[in-house]
Amino acid sequence: MPRTLKRKSKKVGLAPGSLIYTGEKSTEKIRISIINYNEATLVEKELNNIEECYSYINSSTNTWINIEGLNDIKMIERLGLKFNIHPLVLEDILNTDQRPKMNDYDDYLYVVLRMLTYDPVERLISSEQISLILGHNYLISLQEKSGDLFEGVRERIRNGKGKIRKLGADYLAYALIDSVVDGYFTILEKIGELVEDIEDELITEPKPENLHTIHQLRREMILLRKSVWPLREVINMMEKEETSIIKKTINIYLRDVYEHTIQIIDTIESFRDMISGMLDTYLSSVSNKMNEVMKVLTIIATIFIPLTFIAGVWGMNFEHMPELKWPWIYPYGFWALMILIGGVMIMYFKRKHWL
Amino acid sequence: MPRTLKRKSKKVGLAPGSLIYTGEKSTEKIRISIINYNEATLVEKELNNIEECYSYINSSTNTWINIEGLNDIKMIERLGLKFNIHPLVLEDILNTDQRPKMNDYDDYLYVVLRMLTYDPVERLISSEQISLILGHNYLISLQEKSGDLFEGVRERIRNGKGKIRKLGADYLAYALIDSVVDGYFTILEKIGELVEDIEDELITEPKPENLHTIHQLRREMILLRKSVWPLREVINMMEKEETSIIKKTINIYLRDVYEHTIQIIDTIESFRDMISGMLDTYLSSVSNKMNEVMKVLTIIATIFIPLTFIAGVWGMNFEHMPELKWPWIYPYGFWALMILIGGVMIMYFKRKHWL
Amino acid sequence: MPRTLKRKSKKVGLAPGSLIYTGEKSTEKIRISIINYNEATLVEKELNNIEECYSYINSSTNTWINIEGLNDIKMIERLGLKFNIHPLVLEDILNTDQRPKMNDYDDYLYVVLRMLTYDPVERLISSEQISLILGHNYLISLQEKSGDLFEGVRERIRNGKGKIRKLGADYLAYALIDSVVDGYFTILEKIGELVEDIEDELITEPKPENLHTIHQLRREMILLRKSVWPLREVINMMEKEETSIIKKTINIYLRDVYEHTIQIIDTIESFRDMISGMLDTYLSSVSNKMNEVMKVLTIIATIFIPLTFIAGVWGMNFEHMPELKWPWIYPYGFWALMILIGGVMIMYFKRKHWL
Amino acid sequence: MPRTLKRKSKKVGLAPGSLIYTGEKSTEKIRISIINYNEATLVEKELNNIEECYSYINSSTNTWINIEGLNDIKMIERLGLKFNIHPLVLEDILNTDQRPKMNDYDDYLYVVLRMLTYDPVERLISSEQISLILGHNYLISLQEKSGDLFEGVRERIRNGKGKIRKLGADYLAYALIDSVVDGYFTILEKIGELVEDIEDELITEPKPENLHTIHQLRREMILLRKSVWPLREVINMMEKEETSIIKKTINIYLRDVYEHTIQIIDTIESFRDMISGMLDTYLSSVSNKMNEVMKVLTIIATIFIPLTFIAGVWGMNFEHMPELKWPWIYPYGFWALMILIGGVMIMYFKRKHWL
Amino acid sequence: MPRTLKRKSKKVGLAPGSLIYTGEKSTEKIRISIINYNEATLVEKELNNIEECYSYINSSTNTWINIEGLNDIKMIERLGLKFNIHPLVLEDILNTDQRPKMNDYDDYLYVVLRMLTYDPVERLISSEQISLILGHNYLISLQEKSGDLFEGVRERIRNGKGKIRKLGADYLAYALIDSVVDGYFTILEKIGELVEDIEDELITEPKPENLHTIHQLRREMILLRKSVWPLREVINMMEKEETSIIKKTINIYLRDVYEHTIQIIDTIESFRDMISGMLDTYLSSVSNKMNEVMKVLTIIATIFIPLTFIAGVWGMNFEHMPELKWPWIYPYGFWALMILIGGVMIMYFKRKHWL
Repeated sequence: MPRTLKRKSKKVGLAPGSLIYTGEKSTEKIRISIINYNEATLVEKELNNIEECYSYINSSTNTWINIEGLNDIKMIERLGLKFNIHPLVLEDILNTDQRPKMNDYDDYLYVVLRMLTYDPVERLISSEQISLILGHNYLISLQEKSGDLFEGVRERIRNGKGKIRKLGADYLAYALIDSVVDGYFTILEKIGELVEDIEDELITEPKPENLHTIHQLRREMILLRKSVWPLREVINMMEKEETSIIKKTINIYLRDVYEHTIQIIDTIESFRDMISGMLDTYLSSVSNKMNEVMKVLTIIATIFIPLTFIAGVWGMNFEHMPELKWPWIYPYGFWALMILIGGVMIMYFKRKHWL
Repeated sequence: MPRTLKRKSKKVGLAPGSLIYTGEKSTEKIRISIINYNEATLVEKELNNIEECYSYINSSTNTWINIEGLNDIKMIERLGLKFNIHPLVLEDILNTDQRPKMNDYDDYLYVVLRMLTYDPVERLISSEQISLILGHNYLISLQEKSGDLFEGVRERIRNGKGKIRKLGADYLAYALIDSVVDGYFTILEKIGELVEDIEDELITEPKPENLHTIHQLRREMILLRKSVWPLREVINMMEKEETSIIKKTINIYLRDVYEHTIQIIDTIESFRDMISGMLDTYLSSVSNKMNEVMKVLTIIATIFIPLTFIAGVWGMNFEHMPELKWPWIYPYGFWALMILIGGVMIMYFKRKHWL
Repeated sequence: MPRTLKRKSKKVGLAPGSLIYTGEKSTEKIRISIINYNEATLVEKELNNIEECYSYINSSTNTWINIEGLNDIKMIERLGLKFNIHPLVLEDILNTDQRPKMNDYDDYLYVVLRMLTYDPVERLISSEQISLILGHNYLISLQEKSGDLFEGVRERIRNGKGKIRKLGADYLAYALIDSVVDGYFTILEKIGELVEDIEDELITEPKPENLHTIHQLRREMILLRKSVWPLREVINMMEKEETSIIKKTINIYLRDVYEHTIQIIDTIESFRDMISGMLDTYLSSVSNKMNEVMKVLTIIATIFIPLTFIAGVWGMNFEHMPELKWPWIYPYGFWALMILIGGVMIMYFKRKHWL
Repeated sequence: MPRTLKRKSKKVGLAPGSLIYTGEKSTEKIRISIINYNEATLVEKELNNIEECYSYINSSTNTWINIEGLNDIKMIERLGLKFNIHPLVLEDILNTDQRPKMNDYDDYLYVVLRMLTYDPVERLISSEQISLILGHNYLISLQEKSGDLFEGVRERIRNGKGKIRKLGADYLAYALIDSVVDGYFTILEKIGELVEDIEDELITEPKPENLHTIHQLRREMILLRKSVWPLREVINMMEKEETSIIKKTINIYLRDVYEHTIQIIDTIESFRDMISGMLDTYLSSVSNKMNEVMKVLTIIATIFIPLTFIAGVWGMNFEHMPELKWPWIYPYGFWALMILIGGVMIMYFKRKHWL
Repeated sequence: MPRTLKRKSKKVGLAPGSLIYTGEKSTEKIRISIINYNEATLVEKELNNIEECYSYINSSTNTWINIEGLNDIKMIERLGLKFNIHPLVLEDILNTDQRPKMNDYDDYLYVVLRMLTYDPVERLISSEQISLILGHNYLISLQEKSGDLFEGVRERIRNGKGKIRKLGADYLAYALIDSVVDGYFTILEKIGELVEDIEDELITEPKPENLHTIHQLRREMILLRKSVWPLREVINMMEKEETSIIKKTINIYLRDVYEHTIQIIDTIESFRDMISGMLDTYLSSVSNKMNEVMKVLTIIATIFIPLTFIAGVWGMNFEHMPELKWPWIYPYGFWALMILIGGVMIMYFKRKHWL
């Protein structure tokens, strides 16, 4: 979270529309790839510079330009000029801490998504901004880093499976959003497993580390929620928007992914409930342990303190303590008394259900 | 909950409309049954394959096709083709983790319900998806497993009791939804009994197991709520929807079942309140017990520690301790002092209401 | 609460409109009374069977038929036939666990209220369903048991006080609702007294029983809220409804009782706040007591443990302990040391504000 | 709070519009004062009976009739007749537990406010109902007791300062409401001081009394909120209402006082947050104190219990304990062991940060 | 917070529109500066009195009058007369505790913002009211104190960078609001760092001071929220308002800053969640520490109390204790017993996972 803010504050005091990349700098090369397709033809290519793609764009094919890496601000600017993109959109693309949103600029839609991936080793979710610029016959997708969840979509374009080759760029945009949303399911599944593991641990043997994990899970739920809640609204807007870029035939698919986001939100809320239940379980497990410890102390102390007192009494050095001389007092008086007192106490504890 | 997600994530990366059954695989045979009826006639039959049912469908009778078991994807596909059902609907039927919803596809409505049944031995609620496809003169209901809550409805069709034979497929759909909602009442009753049992236990003798049961109840409340809340909206939409499939005469019945869902939601909220009150009761019962334990320790220790000190004093080996020689000191000095100190302390505790 | 559910589940699997009385069976005779009045005339009578009342109904007088006891299902059915009442309404009348609601059936309105009465001995609120069927010139009120809050209304009709004889059956319905709402105020007053009593007890001497009472109060608040919240909506609907049964002149009175329900809801919310504050007070009172107990233990133990150690030292049997022989050591050495150590500790505790 | 309810329940069972004063009875004389003014003229007078005021009312001047004390029901009835006021309004005037509201009776508006005053000695807020009847050229204000916050308004009328003499009775009503709202600020300021005082106390030395004060503050916040929330809505309605009684020129002033109520609500919410933070601070202060106490006990006991054991060992009376005879053992053996064990334990506690 | 109220209550009882400065009095001189610009020309000047600025205002240039310091009420009044500003606006300017708002006075808009600055030494946020009066070709900004966040905007005007010289006073107003919002990001970044620091501390070594810091952070979150929430609404109103003062071309920029406010609100909510998680962590860290302390006490006491009792037994002075004479009993009987008992207990604690 603070990372986001640090990046944002780099920009304080600059004019709106100033292009500064606020993400992590990397020396990785920018990857530009293009897929140009319609029902009949298919061209897939890696490009060296952005200008190569312009020739592909024409009204009879759909062009998907995918850019991974946002270090080259000049290139983004040239792209913006070519496709006539508003400077505020370019700023938002580079400012990689946007919340999901959709803006309608008449001849294109600008959509921001957050793609979440889960690192199973660090048990951390990392969040990456995906910007989509959707025109009538093209879709530009911009990612912060290489590596994405879109391989399945590319495969479907290559194979011509499903409707993807038959429909336009709007369906392609839907397919990408659907992949991102499917990614949320994958993460929720991983978190679900983690939740189950910890719940078992909490009952058998609670540890302070569990508390740490619970708080981390809570924070990841916040992150997920911050990605999904506005996305739900974005998809709803895409469905309702009066625009010719998204055709009516796509609505039924948008409705489907919209229902998926609701399902995710439902699951997040359930997990939040479960996680807060885990906190209760942890705290009361700890307090149960404590109570057990205290009970042992109390029982031992309560039994032996009076006994020790009696031993102390007969350890006194008064000259006139006649009982000290009775021959039977030690085995039959003292020890009998000890056993009596101890026994009465143990019975008392038993009746109180402390033992 | 995680089960749901595991099933969903099987589908990540596939094209929308790909048919994969995400429920539990079983080798059980699929049961297809048909009831074809109007006010005058009635045919009830078990079918071997789905194609047999097509001949029954005609505008003068209502046809209810009930399918139990979703393993045979091919059959679902053929059914989809015959009745002209959208691939996304077929996907949703097989994807048995939908939340209740209604989609209007002009010549049929697609309704998803969740049928809950309670296993009294395991004390667990199990949830099964019911899909309804409601056309003008037919209703197709699809269930994950054999066994349902619809026997009463079948009985009413056979006997011709009530209005069910006089009205159309829309009334039949209402009757099925009503049965599912009645099932929620049965579960709430069972949970209510469990709640009462535990409340009594919590007051008499709280155990760590109770905490476990409380959390389980809380989770079942979440499950119920996730089934009922959206169902309420579904029923409201069915009533309000501008469609010729649901006739206006049915609205009064839909209103009635709508009121039942509100009543269920009310009861769920009351139970949630009671369950969170039970958590408070448990925690303060435990802490009351702890306090009692601590008080006993304190009283015993506080009385005997000073007494032991005094016994220790007179157990010292100083040569010049003149009182050791006084003949009356042990019976009348020492023991009187002991009784005095003990008595004063007990009175102090009594005044403080610790005893 | 569970009682409600048990009754409901009797009906599971039956056709809608099946008449089964779900309330408590009683052998008490059903009381049917009629008051037929207009500004000039007044007839009040107890009837033996429901048919006797039909002759009174005519357009120039208002007829109030009051039925106490719902055991005779046949009679309810005949009543339904005579007044042309929908079977679902009859079902709701007998199904005495409805939440307050209003349904408009064009030539009559069906209103459900919950009348609450407080048993001061058991300190329990009992809830009874009142059904009103309001036609143009008649009002039928149906109660589960004999005994109600309507005596004041009857008195006003008999004396012709206020506007009740001058206005129609709609005003009579308003007057009954107003009586029920006034009953809520009476209950809130009783609960308010209970709350004040317990608050005083909690500060002076908290007991585990208080916790029980607090939870019971909380549950009664839930019951009240479940009766009042929907009633508020019902009254609002009655005011807004486009129906000729409720004349515009009545609106000002409905507005008045509507404001009363808001006032009740406000008070309930305040009580809820106070009750949850009481829980805090209880818990921190208990923990304060505990702290006091622990402090006493700590002080006594902390003072005497070192003293006992020193006495133990000089109780050792080493041959070469020269100080044992010093004649002044016991009175001036040992006791001075004891007083010094004790004094220092007490001063330390005083400075720490533990004493 | 319960006071309110007690008063309300006096009325249970009476016809609506029955006039019964539910406030505190007092033998104080009722004060009736009139201020008749326009830009040019000003008459201010104390009246003996309400009838004297009628002659002043005319269309060229504004007449403000202020009545302090509601004991004389007959007078209220005569007033009602003269100004043609609905019986339900008269009932509400006398029923001094209304929540703030506005009712539009076409030729006058009825507005209920709650005037809060703070008693600095008892540290209690007292609440008084102010009823305003606003006609085209007159304003009648009715108070429960003598003494109000309107002296500033009277002064402005006398001096002709500001716009008050130039504008109508609607502006006067605004001025009174503004005075009442300013009174809320005064109370919030006093509470703010109290909050600051207690916060300091909580950190330096928490006492059980603080808890009591915190709960009282919480209750006063509820009282304030119950007065301000509906008032905000009343002012909004006055601004939006389609009525000729409130001219459009007044709207800007109503908007101003509306913004003040929002500011008050904001402050109340902040205070509520602070007060609930104070509860946390109190509880954790108390638990910190407790922990400190327990630590001292633990340290003292843990150090001396083993030492006492060792002293006990060498206090045993076995004949064959050769070390008892070694001459150096007491000073160099026993005491060195004591210092060693004590030192090791203190170092252990230091390392654990318990000391 | 109380400061705000103290200032407000200075005004209680005055007529609306009375000008009284409620902020902190200071003897600092008021700074008036003017920037008059269009695309071609630029004049920047410090003025001695407000009248000097009037000559600059004309329809072909934009004039930005910035006033720092509000002590000179007369000057504010003259400014109000010159620009025809409503007295309530002047009152609000001087009443420096407004919440953010926008009022449309047809030929100018009045906007209130709260500029927050963070003092890194005191770790405190201070809040200053910024009033903007936006006319067709002028913008007047009024600040309580000298020093602001607008230097970047001035620089852009001087350099002619971005669109600021090309667009009107409405864009200038946007630029100032954007600077204020950017300031919120700076503060959130600082708070984010603080949150991270404290989280680390809480896990390694919780201190009571942390609790204090947590509560302070919570209060600062409240302050931020009170500044941002209404500002979001203000910006939305500016975008939606039907006014010629804000041109349609500015909307896209307002939308951008609107999205920033949503992002800030999101972050505030995340921080609130994290801070409340920190409270949990703190409390359970403290309780973990406590448990550790108690365990040590229990273990030491539980082991040594029985041992001390046995030593006490053999320290008794009975004449007939035959074992005292056995030569092997001390080394092989007593010590062996000690080691046995101690060992058994340690094993028991190990098995219970207390060691």
